[in-house]
Amino acid sequence: MQIETRLERGQRQLAKIDGAGGQAVVDALADIAPDFATYLLEFPFGDIYSRNGLSLRDREIATIAALAAMGTATPQLKVHIQAGLNVGITRDEITEILMQMAVYAGFPAALNGLFAAKDVFAAEPE
Amino acid sequence: MQIETRLERGQRQLAKIDGAGGQAVVDALADIAPDFATYLLEFPFGDIYSRNGLSLRDREIATIAALAAMGTATPQLKVHIQAGLNVGITRDEITEILMQMAVYAGFPAALNGLFAAKDVFAAEPE
Amino acid sequence: MQIETRLERGQRQLAKIDGAGGQAVVDALADIAPDFATYLLEFPFGDIYSRNGLSLRDREIATIAALAAMGTATPQLKVHIQAGLNVGITRDEITEILMQMAVYAGFPAALNGLFAAKDVFAAEPE
Amino acid sequence: MQIETRLERGQRQLAKIDGAGGQAVVDALADIAPDFATYLLEFPFGDIYSRNGLSLRDREIATIAALAAMGTATPQLKVHIQAGLNVGITRDEITEILMQMAVYAGFPAALNGLFAAKDVFAAEPE
Amino acid sequence: MQIETRLERGQRQLAKIDGAGGQAVVDALADIAPDFATYLLEFPFGDIYSRNGLSLRDREIATIAALAAMGTATPQLKVHIQAGLNVGITRDEITEILMQMAVYAGFPAALNGLFAAKDVFAAEPE
Amino acid sequence: MQIETRLERGQRQLAKIDGAGGQAVVDALADIAPDFATYLLEFPFGDIYSRNGLSLRDREIATIAALAAMGTATPQLKVHIQAGLNVGITRDEITEILMQMAVYAGFPAALNGLFAAKDVFAAEPE
Repeated sequence: MQIETRLERGQRQLAKIDGAGGQAVVDALADIAPDFATYLLEFPFGDIYSRNGLSLRDREIATIAALAAMGTATPQLKVHIQAGLNVGITRDEITEILMQMAVYAGFPAALNGLFAAKDVFAAEPE
Repeated sequence: MQIETRLERGQRQLAKIDGAGGQAVVDALADIAPDFATYLLEFPFGDIYSRNGLSLRDREIATIAALAAMGTATPQLKVHIQAGLNVGITRDEITEILMQMAVYAGFPAALNGLFAAKDVFAAEPE
Repeated sequence: MQIETRLERGQRQLAKIDGAGGQAVVDALADIAPDFATYLLEFPFGDIYSRNGLSLRDREIATIAALAAMGTATPQLKVHIQAGLNVGITRDEITEILMQMAVYAGFPAALNGLFAAKDVFAAEPE
Repeated sequence: MQIETRLERGQRQLAKIDGAGGQAVVDALADIAPDFATYLLEFPFGDIYSRNGLSLRDREIATIAALAAMGTATPQLKVHIQAGLNVGITRDEITEILMQMAVYAGFPAALNGLFAAKDVFAAEPE
Repeated sequence: MQIETRLERGQRQLAKIDGAGGQAVVDALADIAPDFATYLLEFPFGDIYSRNGLSLRDREIATIAALAAMGTATPQLKVHIQAGLNVGITRDEITEILMQMAVYAGFPAALNGLFAAKDVFAAEPE
Repeated sequence: MQIETRLERGQRQLAKIDGAGGQAVVDALADIAPDFATYLLEFPFGDIYSRNGLSLRDREIATIAALAAMGTATPQLKVHIQAGLNVGITRDEITEILMQMAVYAGFPAALNGLFAAKDVFAAEPE
């Protein structure tokens, strides 16, 4: 029996969590920084998202909140709004998380997050 | 039967979620901006944290993640790490949330969040 | 005689300050987060912009400066550059505010603010 | 008749606007980066704050708002809260500006700004 | 023999470092804030980039890293990725700098920086 | 012959680059998040700083610039100003890097960076 490498575990987790959006990022890195695609699979997904101690649902709540509050990572926020749906957060819950960001990062951060969610929700079958 | 005002609901929610740390913030505003204490109770606590649709546990995961990622709100991060413990997030789960912020906001944001948590954990009875 | 609600006061203030740009934001929220449109009208406009103690002109100077310095809220910066014109700040004064942001938030923040202003100025009759 | 240099004009403006707090910054740079003290006097004060087209009062409203919203420049925010008082903004108006930042940069940014103002107000004779 | 003014020195440095991208920024300011174009030439280029004590190569490493980490200045990051190539940093070295930003500002900042570089590299003859 | 693990390589690189300051961070994590100390050694130091393609000197220029521009990571900035000295950047060059950040992140970011450098320089034998 072979032990799964960090890279293999990361690939498995990325597919499960981020789905096509995550793979698109990995693919887009192929001709500019293929090693960075490897790091992205290994550290965030092979290490962090593979840890016990916090559910994938809770991890995506944290990620959506952080990316919306930062306001500098719209493409990644969209990937993780989709990821949130993939791991069982409902549309209404995602909307609640984004609305709450008005308190901590201001109304523009919440608005921009909500409009990102609107795009993601519109693009997927209900 | 009297209907609870937004302010009263906010005071009740603040006491339940943030406890003494939240009340200390309200008190510190008394001589500089008492109206802001009212807004703080009414909008974040009376409106947002009083909404159905997302559990207090999930709301505090989002808040801890956002404040750690932003990196500009250490006093508020500490209040909400305590709030997280108050609404049932374990120390280990808070540590997981903060570690995960390394992926989205960088290692310094995660480190500073972990050291804030260390202070909060040290100050309360285990 | 009926007392104006926070929501009504907010709607009146939004119309006066942000005009069509503000209403467009409210409308865009209708199908994703209608409650957030209510909060947006109630707290920023019904509460904060309705306070005495600072003129609308001064409030818009503060808002334009803050949004340009943050650099994460271009759509909202454009709405408030228009709002600044609506409440009597001149084009030249807005340009001064944005130029000054180079000192506090760096030349890129000032440049991006100036180019946002250029778009807003171009879109309205002189 | 001699024409005032940018440096001289900057020194005059710094003394008028920031007073002792500004001079303390210039002095603190003497042994690490004296050239940077020169640039600080020349560009922000000799160039920007010496421009016509926006009053010093309006410039300080913009600066206080920007620094509070950014949340990364507490020492400079305190210098400019004092500068705001120096050029005729009242304590209550400064409090209004800082409260308003809750809308754009979140409640923690407003709270931290208000507590910085509390320190500055406490340190000067009323 | 005439002494070069700060403006002339800045124009010379801008042409050498940023090339067409820098001139395009100066041109775009002509109708909204021509004085700001002057400041941009004088302070960053006439003063800072004209200093001895750090090579242009080292200065561009610092600038690319800072702009990628901030995440709020994509147009300027692209200008300075091109500037980095102009002063002798290789494509692979720029990629290394951007990858490293994942450590300090998070994976989204690094990814967005790498995709900006991909655009710049694609637009110039290899 | 044994192959060095990522952790071992990271430990070796951390000792070489950050010295005592880096080890202090690792030690401080021992009782709150020991796994995070492992990740810190493995990814930033075992992976990124161990890559060929960019000298340690260039990597520290990038890191000092990024941390100063972000303005949210003073403890880490101090560690890396020391690290810069350790890998051969001079005090004057570090001062140049920090001064340059005024252009991209504003004068407060540069000032706070310079005062952090002043502390680090004062603490070590000249």
